Amino acid sequence: MYTLSANQYGKAEIHLVRIYRDSPRHEIRDLTVTTSLRGDFEDAYTTGDQSKVLPTDTQKNTAFAFAKTHGEGAVEDYALALGRHFVDNDEFAREATIEVLVDGWDRVVVGGAEHEHTWVRRGPERRTVRVDAVGTGDDQRLEVTGGVTDLVILKSTGSEFHGFHKDEYTTLGETDDRILATSIDAAWRFGTFPADWDAAFDAARAALVGTFATWHSLALQQTLWQIGQAVLDAVPELAEVKLAAPNKHHFLYDFSRFTVEPPIPNDNEVFHADDRPYGLIEATVTRS
Amino acid sequence: MYTLSANQYGKAEIHLVRIYRDSPRHEIRDLTVTTSLRGDFEDAYTTGDQSKVLPTDTQKNTAFAFAKTHGEGAVEDYALALGRHFVDNDEFAREATIEVLVDGWDRVVVGGAEHEHTWVRRGPERRTVRVDAVGTGDDQRLEVTGGVTDLVILKSTGSEFHGFHKDEYTTLGETDDRILATSIDAAWRFGTFPADWDAAFDAARAALVGTFATWHSLALQQTLWQIGQAVLDAVPELAEVKLAAPNKHHFLYDFSRFTVEPPIPNDNEVFHADDRPYGLIEATVTRS
Amino acid sequence: MYTLSANQYGKAEIHLVRIYRDSPRHEIRDLTVTTSLRGDFEDAYTTGDQSKVLPTDTQKNTAFAFAKTHGEGAVEDYALALGRHFVDNDEFAREATIEVLVDGWDRVVVGGAEHEHTWVRRGPERRTVRVDAVGTGDDQRLEVTGGVTDLVILKSTGSEFHGFHKDEYTTLGETDDRILATSIDAAWRFGTFPADWDAAFDAARAALVGTFATWHSLALQQTLWQIGQAVLDAVPELAEVKLAAPNKHHFLYDFSRFTVEPPIPNDNEVFHADDRPYGLIEATVTRS
Amino acid sequence: MYTLSANQYGKAEIHLVRIYRDSPRHEIRDLTVTTSLRGDFEDAYTTGDQSKVLPTDTQKNTAFAFAKTHGEGAVEDYALALGRHFVDNDEFAREATIEVLVDGWDRVVVGGAEHEHTWVRRGPERRTVRVDAVGTGDDQRLEVTGGVTDLVILKSTGSEFHGFHKDEYTTLGETDDRILATSIDAAWRFGTFPADWDAAFDAARAALVGTFATWHSLALQQTLWQIGQAVLDAVPELAEVKLAAPNKHHFLYDFSRFTVEPPIPNDNEVFHADDRPYGLIEATVTRS
Repeated sequence: MYTLSANQYGKAEIHLVRIYRDSPRHEIRDLTVTTSLRGDFEDAYTTGDQSKVLPTDTQKNTAFAFAKTHGEGAVEDYALALGRHFVDNDEFAREATIEVLVDGWDRVVVGGAEHEHTWVRRGPERRTVRVDAVGTGDDQRLEVTGGVTDLVILKSTGSEFHGFHKDEYTTLGETDDRILATSIDAAWRFGTFPADWDAAFDAARAALVGTFATWHSLALQQTLWQIGQAVLDAVPELAEVKLAAPNKHHFLYDFSRFTVEPPIPNDNEVFHADDRPYGLIEATVTRS
Repeated sequence: MYTLSANQYGKAEIHLVRIYRDSPRHEIRDLTVTTSLRGDFEDAYTTGDQSKVLPTDTQKNTAFAFAKTHGEGAVEDYALALGRHFVDNDEFAREATIEVLVDGWDRVVVGGAEHEHTWVRRGPERRTVRVDAVGTGDDQRLEVTGGVTDLVILKSTGSEFHGFHKDEYTTLGETDDRILATSIDAAWRFGTFPADWDAAFDAARAALVGTFATWHSLALQQTLWQIGQAVLDAVPELAEVKLAAPNKHHFLYDFSRFTVEPPIPNDNEVFHADDRPYGLIEATVTRS
Repeated sequence: MYTLSANQYGKAEIHLVRIYRDSPRHEIRDLTVTTSLRGDFEDAYTTGDQSKVLPTDTQKNTAFAFAKTHGEGAVEDYALALGRHFVDNDEFAREATIEVLVDGWDRVVVGGAEHEHTWVRRGPERRTVRVDAVGTGDDQRLEVTGGVTDLVILKSTGSEFHGFHKDEYTTLGETDDRILATSIDAAWRFGTFPADWDAAFDAARAALVGTFATWHSLALQQTLWQIGQAVLDAVPELAEVKLAAPNKHHFLYDFSRFTVEPPIPNDNEVFHADDRPYGLIEATVTRS
Repeated sequence: MYTLSANQYGKAEIHLVRIYRDSPRHEIRDLTVTTSLRGDFEDAYTTGDQSKVLPTDTQKNTAFAFAKTHGEGAVEDYALALGRHFVDNDEFAREATIEVLVDGWDRVVVGGAEHEHTWVRRGPERRTVRVDAVGTGDDQRLEVTGGVTDLVILKSTGSEFHGFHKDEYTTLGETDDRILATSIDAAWRFGTFPADWDAAFDAARAALVGTFATWHSLALQQTLWQIGQAVLDAVPELAEVKLAAPNKHHFLYDFSRFTVEPPIPNDNEVFHADDRPYGLIEATVTRS
């Protein structure tokens, strides 16, 4: 006997751009949206009967429509409206998850002035929004998680790594001055909703970046713990911060092997930025 | 007050190649290994004390060493040995996860004969192995999950999609003959260990591919349910199969818009293979 | 004074799938097509007048249409028809280039028999076709270039590298037994057209792969020279072969640094497959 | 008879990071370097004799060493020094090409002040430098080409496309107000060397971006022609500008198909950002 346990379906990576043309100074919003529905969908699997299945194509259409009809507030407001739409209006959907990646665009400066309708893409960092909408009416639960992904950050000093555990396979040297570089994925879950989603995002991101820069690091683990606390400090509405950070290794290049005259000093200035493998440190910091 | 909740660390994407040179007919194994440890590592976060932290560099060294010292059996045997090594020998690690992606290589055929030491890469499909090792001694729990990722598969008929739920945003037409294409990620968890890991893999993969091909599909959901059951049927040691399948849309190209003479028939032969967005269907099938 | 020199325009990466449904045993062809036109298009640049510019959207439509109307022969025949269409029928286009990447699909085997309408993707290797069509009528010149891209190939012995030039920055050790791995991009230009495009491709590819396997290599350079000659030998209609081959380094992992007992032998079996940087060797071999 | 015609070899994608630690306010330079040598290297191909071949590993070592010993000036100075090194010091190399991709990093701002040793990655845009060094002594020719790659730029109005050539496959509608988005690859070749490489880069990039923003576009072709002229105007030392620009299509989403009340206006605000295919427009503008 077999059971259909966890299951969901939706539309992934809907890439939509909303332009705001109310004044000659346009605004742009660039979203990649993924929708997922969970609910009374077992028949679609077990008998092939699709009569309760709202097509993923319809979910896509709705994501585009809501960019127009529910696009005035923050991205979080848009995602909440979209998530609520599915659980409130689709009698067979009991839970909806809306995930949004926000690509950044910087307004072009021409002759010292910001241009009204031209931007260049800013990356690789992207803001993230996730909404989980569960149930309807008074029992409805709405959860919002903000964050950033691919925030690549590097400090050229202020990072040590030594005193670690060793075994018969350990060859790593200890260091009291290394490059610390990572690409942070952070997801912060709101316990209550803030008055201003964008201000909350700005405060959380500033705490993250500022702590990475200023905390003298004994390990990436310690830096993550400090970042988690700083983000929770900065945004009182947050309940929890999840952090995943690859240790993007920068190996000091060893010039002592060369016979060039005069010898080139190994003075901590030239590094090989390696791709793989990389350390991967993960931590969740929770408000108690 | 803040709490460090879930946390782990390890080395990701260790790309190692093992050659077996015992006879002139060499063998090759191409693995991308990720290790993660969980245990008594809070101090590394909260005080920066690394005395319990086995460096990720050491984990990498160990993964390479075990490719030599524990590389004779199946990939699952290698991953089990590596996972057990960490929990058995590192007094601070209580849990270890080893994830392996296996790249396939096909032996080159020259003049009708298989070459002894040359291969071409086969992809994009990759076999996957995951081992979770928890605890030591009699209480140790070892869990093995096999699978495939990026198994891109397409059928040119034998797939319908109609009778679905509609709302005011629905524009999709119904069809009783479409291309069904996906890139399957499957992860099958073993309840007990099979006598032959490779035979189990082959049986599970054959069930997956065969069911996709032969099941007349009323929806990708239904196909996944059938695949899940077939895989469990094929390998009695399996407890559960998780499936995630993007619906890689192939849109019939509409020639009726052209004024070319004679008109080109829209006879279900020429399709635009679109990248994004895509439907994403997920299901877990469990042996009860 | 400024001049508009080289210029062209077209549609890139048109991903089309053609199914052949003439019998229950379907066939599939998966093409990614790029078109480029050169001709009397200066006004589009200098004055913005588009009256001579066939939109890239039209080029795309034509690529799809020709997949139906000119899809019966080899991919080369399709590309020739498409390229000739633009120079023969568009009075402003004097030259057209059609580039095609062909994704491979392997028919699924179920119960020992090939399935009639289901395939799995074979990669990463792709066959390539390029057609250059210049002029019309008797002066028309049609050039066809075949090839492969991303043919990842590895031999575990039969490769040396020593006796090289050294300077004060040289640290590389010499070796008489190393892994040789690369990802070959080859483009072979036809001087005359063969009777059977597919047979010519098969012969060229077999010569390439067979030579890589069987030639005892003193350097990747030498292997490329041998491959170029072998391909020209195999297909008499070819005038020239261009080869580009990254040296995908596999570094022997040094176990002598570990203190584990018994020591692990460094016996040329376990390698780190590095991503970047890589050597890049390029050569063109021409029939004189 | 076969001839070895064009051939070269080198090291690709050497990813090096140089930190300048002369004061507490560090500086960072992040380079991905590719070297290629051409010269007296035929024996390496035809006989396997490597005695004239400076290993690509040595080229890599040299690229790292020069980041320290020749890293004080602009990236162009570094690339010139590296290119000249090979042709001046390696008796068998007659030509060297050095290609550099420069990743941007923005200094982190903490509490309103720029941090001294922490940066976040800025992308996807990258500055490019290419040096071709040919020959030695008085006959030596040094050519420098600057540029940008992956400069993703979008304007939400000020772009039309109409009056184009039509044939029996044309279905595209005309528009007098569309989104124009592209990812510009530009390469500008210097006829003479400027006093300040960085100032020249800034002027060229500003001309490119400013022209894209302010020129009312009748086609991407016309915009490229205007950009080419503006860049040549801005930097008198430039001889030529090569531009390649994909037309990253943003399709207006058609809300008229929905039955939602009230109807959603199709007012040029919500677009589907499509991945493939894309128009690809290329032009070279030369100072006469």
